[in-house]
Amino acid sequence: VTIALKDIEAAAVRLRGAAIVTPLLESPALNETIGGRVLVKAENLQRVGAFKFRGAYNRLSQLCAAQRQRGVVAYSSGNHAQGVALAARLVGTPALIVMPSDAPAVKIEGTRRLGAEVVFYDRTRENRESIAQSIARAREAVIVPAYDDPDIIAGQGAVGLEIVDQVRALATHADMVVGPVGGGGLMAGVSTAVKALSPATAIWGVEPEGFDDTRLSLAAGERRPAPPHPRSLCDALEAPMPGVLTFPLLARHLAGAVAVSDEEVEAAMRFAFFVLKLVVEPGGAVALAALLARKIDTDGGTAVIVLSGGNVDPALFARVIQASG
Amino acid sequence: VTIALKDIEAAAVRLRGAAIVTPLLESPALNETIGGRVLVKAENLQRVGAFKFRGAYNRLSQLCAAQRQRGVVAYSSGNHAQGVALAARLVGTPALIVMPSDAPAVKIEGTRRLGAEVVFYDRTRENRESIAQSIARAREAVIVPAYDDPDIIAGQGAVGLEIVDQVRALATHADMVVGPVGGGGLMAGVSTAVKALSPATAIWGVEPEGFDDTRLSLAAGERRPAPPHPRSLCDALEAPMPGVLTFPLLARHLAGAVAVSDEEVEAAMRFAFFVLKLVVEPGGAVALAALLARKIDTDGGTAVIVLSGGNVDPALFARVIQASG
Repeated sequence: VTIALKDIEAAAVRLRGAAIVTPLLESPALNETIGGRVLVKAENLQRVGAFKFRGAYNRLSQLCAAQRQRGVVAYSSGNHAQGVALAARLVGTPALIVMPSDAPAVKIEGTRRLGAEVVFYDRTRENRESIAQSIARAREAVIVPAYDDPDIIAGQGAVGLEIVDQVRALATHADMVVGPVGGGGLMAGVSTAVKALSPATAIWGVEPEGFDDTRLSLAAGERRPAPPHPRSLCDALEAPMPGVLTFPLLARHLAGAVAVSDEEVEAAMRFAFFVLKLVVEPGGAVALAALLARKIDTDGGTAVIVLSGGNVDPALFARVIQASG
Repeated sequence: VTIALKDIEAAAVRLRGAAIVTPLLESPALNETIGGRVLVKAENLQRVGAFKFRGAYNRLSQLCAAQRQRGVVAYSSGNHAQGVALAARLVGTPALIVMPSDAPAVKIEGTRRLGAEVVFYDRTRENRESIAQSIARAREAVIVPAYDDPDIIAGQGAVGLEIVDQVRALATHADMVVGPVGGGGLMAGVSTAVKALSPATAIWGVEPEGFDDTRLSLAAGERRPAPPHPRSLCDALEAPMPGVLTFPLLARHLAGAVAVSDEEVEAAMRFAFFVLKLVVEPGGAVALAALLARKIDTDGGTAVIVLSGGNVDPALFARVIQASG
């Protein structure tokens, strides 16, 4: 199983009219700060506040009538949950989501508001995959993985097609595309699309410190877990290991991966608040953090960064924007 | 002195490459909440975080060499201050801004960071116009008014040209355009552009409660002050009376004006945070507030709302997003 440009193009056709074509923003103040041109793909402005809707809708819109009747099951810390919940509502199928009990409240509420049933698990003691599988078996429901699924990867890849189109519309060329990597679904899809259409563009992944399994796996040439680590501010990016399907795509396409600290992520969230006027969640801010912290050097060129989500609890956001940088 | 479409078109040419063509965003969740189609003109994503840069740059880019050498003086609660400061830096002229000592810190710091000199006055005891005039006389500097100036109005009007273009690109028609009114510069310019190109579009102004001088003036058919009122959450919209130049344009073009309460403004800021993922300041949120509070009925049609600014102190923003609506 692999994912090719044509799969992503087919996904983009399915997403037409359902997903938002998010803007590619430019801020002279950000350009000046980085020294070069930075184009901001604002997927925090996507439906449900994260790119995750794209993959979920691409998968669920292909369910047959019998599958739609039985429903879908997913497990997610929150953004995939909301993406599946909205896609399920739009295609008319019941959705049950297994979520950690300590997921951000804004993500739990968002998932419920969209009509999904939420089942909690204890992150420290229980295995969400086995909970989801036993529920899915009982209901004969389809499991919708968060990243390791060809239709999910292809749907997220539509972000890459839009980037290529939008960069062309500006009559310029992207020297690099930088985005977050958790399980790798977003950047597996984005890198496949961008490399097919713009081979000279370098693709970089960004992970939170302590969850840099992709960086370690790229170095090893095979999937490797990161050493055990308590938590990251980036609740959306705590995947323990790259996916079986996502890793080969990342390994083929990525120039590299870097890790950013919680402090660097907070500084990026503040920059987004004060300068860009965008609400970005921790996991959604890692690409901006990598540029601001000079973990990735754009060398005066044109970089596209993906701000992948904006679902952040108000108490956390309030703390971050009131802290001094 | 009046402002015509050709003046706004000339301003738009001057702004090309200097101002950001801000996106016209759409959120299915907002459409569903209002019942109809709402297109969001995100001028909070403009340089300095507010539309005010447009008018300031249109004015300052026309200074002659001698004027540029002597500099400019402005008075402003903050967004015009930052717009003038950035425009002055870009055209290479010194700027001095008279600001109230209780202006939002984010606006004072932003103005200073852009290289402008800031002189404070006491809002309750001093007259900012006379302070600015005596400084300008001493320096032979040009005063840049915040709204009552043909070049300022024409520059802000470029927002209206972009709205018309962007609505056309969506192959639709705007039934109404709704935006904030303080001194009236933005909506005088926007209404002139929109009415010239799309006469059937209704234009609505929104003011904060207690500062509804435009609503009162439209009813009276002449400029009227609002009765004295302590303060509004909308620091950007506390103008005491419509302008000499702006009022005739507002009177000719507006279908009406409505007032929104601080509570309605806070609810709109929360909606922008939770759903739109945009940082909007109180004065920038009044048009959204008017729709959410059903002060203006879009009747299932297509409404364009202008989110005019995003410069808000983090402590205020933190309080608003953590309050229950």
